[in-house]
Amino acid sequence: MSKARRSSLRGRAILGDFFHAPTVGTLAVLFDTLIILDDEGRIIDVLGPDAPERSMAEAAMGERILRLPRGTYGLPGFVDLHVHAPQYPQLGLALDKPLEVWLNAYTFPLEAQYADLDLAEKRYRVLVEDLLANGTTTALYFATQHVEASALLADLCLELGQRALVGKVAMDDPASCPDYYRDADAETAIEGTRAVIDHIRSHPDNGEGRVLPVVTPRFTPSCSEAALEGLGALAREYGCHIQTHCSESDWAHGHALSRFGKTDAEALDGFGLLTRHTVLAHANFLDNTDMDRVSSRGSGVAHCALSNIYFANSVFPLREALERQVRVGLGTDISGGPSRSMFDACLTTVRSSRMLEEGVDPALPKDRRGRPNSAVDLVTAFHLATAGGADVLDLPVGRLEKGCRFDVVLIDASARAGGIRLFETVAPEAIFEKIIHGATRANISSVFVDGYEVAGTAAIADGPTR
Amino acid sequence: MSKARRSSLRGRAILGDFFHAPTVGTLAVLFDTLIILDDEGRIIDVLGPDAPERSMAEAAMGERILRLPRGTYGLPGFVDLHVHAPQYPQLGLALDKPLEVWLNAYTFPLEAQYADLDLAEKRYRVLVEDLLANGTTTALYFATQHVEASALLADLCLELGQRALVGKVAMDDPASCPDYYRDADAETAIEGTRAVIDHIRSHPDNGEGRVLPVVTPRFTPSCSEAALEGLGALAREYGCHIQTHCSESDWAHGHALSRFGKTDAEALDGFGLLTRHTVLAHANFLDNTDMDRVSSRGSGVAHCALSNIYFANSVFPLREALERQVRVGLGTDISGGPSRSMFDACLTTVRSSRMLEEGVDPALPKDRRGRPNSAVDLVTAFHLATAGGADVLDLPVGRLEKGCRFDVVLIDASARAGGIRLFETVAPEAIFEKIIHGATRANISSVFVDGYEVAGTAAIADGPTR
Ligand SMILES: [Zn+2]
Ligand SMILES: [Zn+2]
Repeated sequence: MSKARRSSLRGRAILGDFFHAPTVGTLAVLFDTLIILDDEGRIIDVLGPDAPERSMAEAAMGERILRLPRGTYGLPGFVDLHVHAPQYPQLGLALDKPLEVWLNAYTFPLEAQYADLDLAEKRYRVLVEDLLANGTTTALYFATQHVEASALLADLCLELGQRALVGKVAMDDPASCPDYYRDADAETAIEGTRAVIDHIRSHPDNGEGRVLPVVTPRFTPSCSEAALEGLGALAREYGCHIQTHCSESDWAHGHALSRFGKTDAEALDGFGLLTRHTVLAHANFLDNTDMDRVSSRGSGVAHCALSNIYFANSVFPLREALERQVRVGLGTDISGGPSRSMFDACLTTVRSSRMLEEGVDPALPKDRRGRPNSAVDLVTAFHLATAGGADVLDLPVGRLEKGCRFDVVLIDASARAGGIRLFETVAPEAIFEKIIHGATRANISSVFVDGYEVAGTAAIADGPTR
Repeated sequence: MSKARRSSLRGRAILGDFFHAPTVGTLAVLFDTLIILDDEGRIIDVLGPDAPERSMAEAAMGERILRLPRGTYGLPGFVDLHVHAPQYPQLGLALDKPLEVWLNAYTFPLEAQYADLDLAEKRYRVLVEDLLANGTTTALYFATQHVEASALLADLCLELGQRALVGKVAMDDPASCPDYYRDADAETAIEGTRAVIDHIRSHPDNGEGRVLPVVTPRFTPSCSEAALEGLGALAREYGCHIQTHCSESDWAHGHALSRFGKTDAEALDGFGLLTRHTVLAHANFLDNTDMDRVSSRGSGVAHCALSNIYFANSVFPLREALERQVRVGLGTDISGGPSRSMFDACLTTVRSSRMLEEGVDPALPKDRRGRPNSAVDLVTAFHLATAGGADVLDLPVGRLEKGCRFDVVLIDASARAGGIRLFETVAPEAIFEKIIHGATRANISSVFVDGYEVAGTAAIADGPTR
């Protein structure tokens, strides 16, 4: 589907009930609110019922206003900060394996298949369509080691309308990467990365820069020092985003200590890989010095609560990180995390944080069971899944504010086949809680990126205004 | 909808691919299998492709065989061992409140509303329909303190076709129950319970005993000793099931110790409430002596992993309990647990058990972080959610075996709007993992109880056989 054929709200306005969470812990309720878009899909005004300009704006927009049905609520689209695109076919599989077995017996063989571009095209298309249909309007993707298939993933995001950041995975260390799936050497890793950056930046359909390139060393254990060094230089040269894994597990944390004689974060910093545009996946074992370092560099963390349960031996100390001014967003970590839904990411973030605070073992006395002051609430998790992730990426999305792109998910809270039952709930905060706890794909009636409708059951933008 | 108008597989057979988990940790793959039902909805034969009687049985059943479409898989229906039926309207709400606030400010006022039978009827109908549509074929319900509304819930389960156990909640202690929502005294609690038992047992539509009564002291803190004593005697008199909460949280555990000078389980035992037909919700803080006591009485535990995250200060030591021969099933604990789905109960059971084993705080050294040998696998969780729960209740369901009732959920694993993507997955065990991780209501094409179709998108039993 080309953009030209998509339903569009560009140059129009939408009137209805919205929620967003512009800061940690703050839910903003925008009921009976008129959101006006410019011709490029940017929000140029957000007018509540009492805004002085409201009635004039309504009159001026006239027939160009889309009125949401009662019981439908708009949210900012989700920003998924950590997706391994090629791993989608193994979502929900092999989760009880230790990380090395998971990588070598399952994940590397699977990723290696993407040398076949027909196969890659078919699978990536399902993934991007599914993520959009589940409300993920922005995704930060690890592709595979292959240049062509990585470029293809970017092409598909352009075609299907998702906002995306795509990185060719760099992995050249023969000690840890299998012969059948590896960059031949550091130069190959670096030049392949450059090729994908150039492809994305010069793509004729990418004039608005909706898809961005990312320098993507898989993680320090899979890269030679020459590759890490060169990738840091490349990111500086292009001024582009960086993503990698950092101190995910006891094993990964220990690996850096023994290889570099310093922590993983310190090592990445030494290679020029901790920048204002860096996203570190997991980061469970950052110590306080690491956190302060990450914070001072302006780098961000992709907190993947669900994946952590299977592969990280611990819960990321999210609240500690937030208190130390580390920028944090949420990720699904498909397929280390067995859900594609950012609603699940929000819920698991809250639950894991509570379990960190309360502790888990009833045989321990209460005061020795958990780690105090660790729990975060649902609004904070939702903030991180939207505005927080956007801030980590420095993208103007994740909020319903003047100047932001119109990346929005519409939730039909009354869909019989969906998972939300409002009954007599009227308090906006309670409606919000019910939406986040219950929304399934059947509740997502429409998804917009940049003002274009990119998924949904309702094709609402072309329907009659009510 | 009356039974007479329901699609039925009674006296017919079904041919297709099935899974069940007859024992802890064992997945039985019944592909290309013919399941034959008698005229009362009982399974009388399960014939795999190599069974000697298979071809003769196929010939004999002829047109009476329903052939499942390729990509559809049958599972035993779920047994939800802990549902507070009246709390469904607050599913997903108020989860960050401490238990006393949650009870007094939210839950008791909500439950008190069920004095209004019109309101009760409307809400209970939505609940039972939703549980059936999500694959819960058997539910163990706490109703409310009200006799009439409790009887009404039983009536609705009979009408809508769910297998259910329904208890009027007994709660008479003025020290802990509000004046507006309480049994007037112990005798009222006991006689009200008796009235609901009699109603259910003598119901004209309950000839097959699909709905059963349950003696239901809410938990020891809400009952006088006279009520607990009398309810124990009542359960003996009627030989019926018992359900209550036991040692859910630090607070509840401590309450029993200070009130009775013994553990909650020991106290319940003293009141005659620990029987072969007792289900204890939560039971997180059972010590080893308690577990051995519960095991020797043949009582069971309703493990509610999701609810525990919010209200139990800990993870129930499931594997320890299983090793001590405690019978365990799973519960959603609607609305302490904010999901109606037993798929979620399975997934959360696995995740919480892993977190208990691994521990949660990355600042602790690995060997002091968790509790070894605590993790259970997905097949074990699924076993508990089906056969395990059935065993706790002593009901002939939860397995696809000769002699069991045909309570079955059909999963359409290829539903585009659903959450399962098989791609090229062919290994049965992997298909099973993908189903449990991904299935949503949109994947549930049909649900049978006792051979009657009680929910589903496909109305498959009346469709043409393929
Ligand atoms: Zn990852
Ligand atoms: Zn309960």
